[in-house]
Amino acid sequence: MKDRAIVLLSGGMDSLVTSAIAVKDCKETNFLHVKYGQKTEERELKAFSEIKDHFQPVDSLICKIGYLKQIGQSSLLDENLPIETEAEKGRVPNTYVPFRNAHLLAIAASWAEVISAGRIYIGAVEEDSSGYPDCRESFLSAFETAINQGTKGLFPIEIIAPLLHLTKKEIVLLGKELNVPFQHSWSCYQENEIACGKCGSCQLRLKAFREAGLIDPLPYLLGK
Amino acid sequence: MKDRAIVLLSGGMDSLVTSAIAVKDCKETNFLHVKYGQKTEERELKAFSEIKDHFQPVDSLICKIGYLKQIGQSSLLDENLPIETEAEKGRVPNTYVPFRNAHLLAIAASWAEVISAGRIYIGAVEEDSSGYPDCRESFLSAFETAINQGTKGLFPIEIIAPLLHLTKKEIVLLGKELNVPFQHSWSCYQENEIACGKCGSCQLRLKAFREAGLIDPLPYLLGK
Repeated sequence: MKDRAIVLLSGGMDSLVTSAIAVKDCKETNFLHVKYGQKTEERELKAFSEIKDHFQPVDSLICKIGYLKQIGQSSLLDENLPIETEAEKGRVPNTYVPFRNAHLLAIAASWAEVISAGRIYIGAVEEDSSGYPDCRESFLSAFETAINQGTKGLFPIEIIAPLLHLTKKEIVLLGKELNVPFQHSWSCYQENEIACGKCGSCQLRLKAFREAGLIDPLPYLLGK
Repeated sequence: MKDRAIVLLSGGMDSLVTSAIAVKDCKETNFLHVKYGQKTEERELKAFSEIKDHFQPVDSLICKIGYLKQIGQSSLLDENLPIETEAEKGRVPNTYVPFRNAHLLAIAASWAEVISAGRIYIGAVEEDSSGYPDCRESFLSAFETAINQGTKGLFPIEIIAPLLHLTKKEIVLLGKELNVPFQHSWSCYQENEIACGKCGSCQLRLKAFREAGLIDPLPYLLGK
């Protein structure tokens, strides 16, 4: 069903705005959250729950995967790797979780096939972000083909990434326009109580609010 | 590295023969097993362990995923759904686990990216099998593109499915030629001690051995 959607919702700013778009454009939404062993797992789950309570989707699913932590190589998962604020130009920062979005989309696709949802929303941002390869349009497009080739094909399944080519500033402005509850979202990679304000994710978020001329409702350890 | 491979090994006959091919063709193999909540999970893990002890790969990884069981709709996962022996022509039997191979391949791809493995072996069989959509060449090919678009791209990653267009009889004959330990493999969907002999997977296996003129070393509840 084209009007039934699954929304990947980490609880961050991008997925929050994506949820608001899905809720506006679809008759029925189903929210999916994946805990994958990241340092801020519990805080992100709290953000997910609050955003879910706000939008009241028809159904929601919380999945836990441990294997990305077993596989390692990301500072989001490994207690011994310090979270990199910024990598030199052309290199992906160590916060990259190898092929992470494929796992999220695969779970969404399995669920979509079972509940006959024709759309999967994901808050990936390609250019104005950290350069993760699994946020590229070319990846999302190949994965969409894989979904339609690897499921029964009783209906087409579309991946929708409405923020893909927006800047972070534009995302904040769009969120404002859609009246999203920014106060419920969580972007920090590092902390679980008050956002650090210095990790790559906090910096991108704070810069976006500054450029949009708005004030982020979240408190920050370093100020805003 | 082209010579370093990850092998998806469920412990069934097809993945056993695939492992033997990977071991023959690659300098280094790494075996990956995924427990996904199927009824014969523990028995398949035993098969995996025995086959691993036989081939002695450089490394191995066992991952557990619970979400496919949460999502449901497969008789392999749901205690209340009887395992279908055969579906009417054109319909996929209820043993199909929605988009399962995407999850297995995504885990393999994350691991491949971390250990620089250029090949992922999978024992998918397209024609002479149960008609699962995630065993089709078109799916594997789209997923390979998704892997190469969604990872850092420091080296290409290839999906190799050496059995894809073989009949089950040819797989048994190839296994015999490669001297694989068929006695360590497990194909039954239903039982954990003596194979049932009547589920779709047992039937395909027994037919294959019969047509190949060989005797399956496993005992069966119904005889062979």
